[in-house]
Amino acid sequence: MKYFEIIGFLAAILTTVAFFPQVIKVYKTQNTQSISLSMYIVFSIGILLWLVYGFYLNSLPMIIANAITLVSSIYILYMKLKHK
Amino acid sequence: MKYFEIIGFLAAILTTVAFFPQVIKVYKTQNTQSISLSMYIVFSIGILLWLVYGFYLNSLPMIIANAITLVSSIYILYMKLKHK
Repeated sequence: MKYFEIIGFLAAILTTVAFFPQVIKVYKTQNTQSISLSMYIVFSIGILLWLVYGFYLNSLPMIIANAITLVSSIYILYMKLKHK
Repeated sequence: MKYFEIIGFLAAILTTVAFFPQVIKVYKTQNTQSISLSMYIVFSIGILLWLVYGFYLNSLPMIIANAITLVSSIYILYMKLKHK
């Protein structure tokens, strides 16, 4: 794997796992007050499109990263709606 | 431009503009309580790597989308640290 490909993989991993602490914080505190509802609506749609695009490119890293991020994003969105 | 490329562009646009409502909400409310600090630290590093990767691939959409997202992410991170 070329050196720079590692940077791409690292970027995908970091921007995917980045949402885990937010999921945990929302789960523990049940507090979503300062989280933007429209951010997670727009972001979830965008991630869904990245997932579709990943299938189109047949890119496993894109499919895995965006599938995981989609689950995190929809959970935060669900909690935001639940505590509105 | 092939039909599916539009999906990639839309995904990039949505996951970039998604952060604007969160930036505006944080700016207006000055409240970052339910926002995860570690999310935005990890996410900012990840976006920075996507930006580097975009330069490596010489991909203007990746460079533009990630540069804008980086500014949003660092602003939210700054406000989180400021109101810790």
